[in-house]
Amino acid sequence: MPSAASRQEPVTERFAQHCFVQACRGLPHDRVPVWFMRQAGRSLPEYRAVRGSGSILDAIKDPDLATEITLQPVRRYGVDAAILFSDIVVPVHAVGFGVTVTPGVGPEVQHPFRSASDLQRLRPLDPETDTPYVLETVRLLVDELKVPLIGFAGAPFTVAAYLIEGRPSRDYLLAKSLMFNAEKLWHGLLDRLADLAIASLQSQVECGAVAVQLFDSWAGALSAEQYKRYVAPHSEKVFEALATSGVPRIHFGVNTSELLNLLAAVGADVVGIDWRVRIDDARARLGDAVALQGNLDPAAVVAGVGPALAGTREVLAANGGHPSHIFNLGHGVVPQCDPDVLSEVVRVVHDEGKVGSLTHAPQ
Amino acid sequence: MPSAASRQEPVTERFAQHCFVQACRGLPHDRVPVWFMRQAGRSLPEYRAVRGSGSILDAIKDPDLATEITLQPVRRYGVDAAILFSDIVVPVHAVGFGVTVTPGVGPEVQHPFRSASDLQRLRPLDPETDTPYVLETVRLLVDELKVPLIGFAGAPFTVAAYLIEGRPSRDYLLAKSLMFNAEKLWHGLLDRLADLAIASLQSQVECGAVAVQLFDSWAGALSAEQYKRYVAPHSEKVFEALATSGVPRIHFGVNTSELLNLLAAVGADVVGIDWRVRIDDARARLGDAVALQGNLDPAAVVAGVGPALAGTREVLAANGGHPSHIFNLGHGVVPQCDPDVLSEVVRVVHDEGKVGSLTHAPQ
Repeated sequence: MPSAASRQEPVTERFAQHCFVQACRGLPHDRVPVWFMRQAGRSLPEYRAVRGSGSILDAIKDPDLATEITLQPVRRYGVDAAILFSDIVVPVHAVGFGVTVTPGVGPEVQHPFRSASDLQRLRPLDPETDTPYVLETVRLLVDELKVPLIGFAGAPFTVAAYLIEGRPSRDYLLAKSLMFNAEKLWHGLLDRLADLAIASLQSQVECGAVAVQLFDSWAGALSAEQYKRYVAPHSEKVFEALATSGVPRIHFGVNTSELLNLLAAVGADVVGIDWRVRIDDARARLGDAVALQGNLDPAAVVAGVGPALAGTREVLAANGGHPSHIFNLGHGVVPQCDPDVLSEVVRVVHDEGKVGSLTHAPQ
Repeated sequence: MPSAASRQEPVTERFAQHCFVQACRGLPHDRVPVWFMRQAGRSLPEYRAVRGSGSILDAIKDPDLATEITLQPVRRYGVDAAILFSDIVVPVHAVGFGVTVTPGVGPEVQHPFRSASDLQRLRPLDPETDTPYVLETVRLLVDELKVPLIGFAGAPFTVAAYLIEGRPSRDYLLAKSLMFNAEKLWHGLLDRLADLAIASLQSQVECGAVAVQLFDSWAGALSAEQYKRYVAPHSEKVFEALATSGVPRIHFGVNTSELLNLLAAVGADVVGIDWRVRIDDARARLGDAVALQGNLDPAAVVAGVGPALAGTREVLAANGGHPSHIFNLGHGVVPQCDPDVLSEVVRVVHDEGKVGSLTHAPQ
């Protein structure tokens, strides 16, 4: 396998001046970058046309299909970044933990994580042999794309929550019970999940991903004290392992108002915020050391072009031209979304978004 | 019908020096008051023994049964307040909107709210004729109880979310679509729901409820801007209508980190906080004008006596003896909870909780 540096440098260099990368760094750029979490997916007719009815995990295992699905929203919307078509459970699935993704439900685990013996079901990931399809998709995309590719992984907490609960949960009672009652086992689990995330992210970067996003979608279920004690060390390990890669590292969760400082402190270059917090408030709390990604309410997009554009302009106004801003939704695109509305959002961000300089940006 | 004053004054006077009422007012009292949201319910074997398998709405219509269920947790735990066994959809059900409560699911609406013609399905509530069983239960409880009775209603937003979505939702896309796209209709709906909440709460107070809680459980789905524009005027109307009653008014929601000031500003005497925010942080943001209720993580209770008591002591320590604190969970008791754990929580709050004076309380 070629070294990280030899494979990654040409791609990183190619996009070094790109607005998305520059915004992640808070450096000057020409327009407000915009992309959407879950921009590829069921909201797009061209996705439904190629996707068929099988499991998403099967689609991910088909590099030509996964490449096409990743490219679809880039073609349609003219967004400033692509995000790999994959799923946060791919690594645990690939090492044989027994995870499926049920359409309309989400990840389901046949035998949820319960005790120390289950740790054996989480051996280290060898991306070249366990997820060759992911790497092949990344390589195909790097050849095709005119915009940066974002690689991603699930954060240790959010993946652990799925493995313990066995299915999507509203209150994470089982996960938190294990966290409170079996702290050593909890840390053992999250440490293995951190290693899986690291191996997966590093391999994606080695193949040409220009940025990475760690999805800790359910971290907002935790108090700051809980996050600090049970989660932060493991997410920090992931971010630290990616530090030498030189790619921007994005950290995302929802309901994270009380966690914003911690999400930044574990090593993120960019923190994703949902629509509950104003972007200028978030920046006042976090300072200029990190960039911000977000934060249009996905419900405003579902509501139609009027509410979507009003919300888009509110986000741009609240950001006030600060260069450390990547426009996005506050959470993923939902299937009910009309793609034409998202096209209008992209148009308005590009036409009306102003990029000031860091020194002149409002605090 | 006797006037509010003639019926309510004796009860209000009877509990004027009670620790629960005094804590709501930030006045001196003898011990930290504690009660639990959803303290009556499926977590209790004595509840399951009397409740049968019918709809909760049928149980609520049986005053003897509803009284017994309300009293069960008071007997078992020695909590400092009872909360009426009822449901936030009782008023809309009573005026014939067509709402059921499905066990294991929650409120379901056969014909969800969609257009202006649906407003006709929300005629005003006459508590004496529409919900005589609620009033009879309150009267029976007032005769029995040695602690204050808390009456309650669903806040306009949370009830509207159920009526529009038709069932519990994770992202409230339909409710928000109507909110964004039909603002006049939205306000018409919330105004009627505010009137229903007012009529229900006033009748509960007239029959002897000593405090009221407005449940806006799902308000945390909104940004502060959304809350201010679409929700605050209606919740404010409810709190204002209760002002002359002289009873403490509690305002509750989850995920409300960005809304705390607004939840107080609409007229609450007490703001409920979930476990995401530290109670001393919440107090620093809100000042001493309101009392705080909360905020043990319900998941810590499910996890067992060790995590529950550790969490209890953390809440007490964070509160630092401030007298404006009513101990509670950050959300309702879940069915999986072991009642013996909650008994231990009550014991520790009563044995170890210290009540300082407002002037000496840490800010």
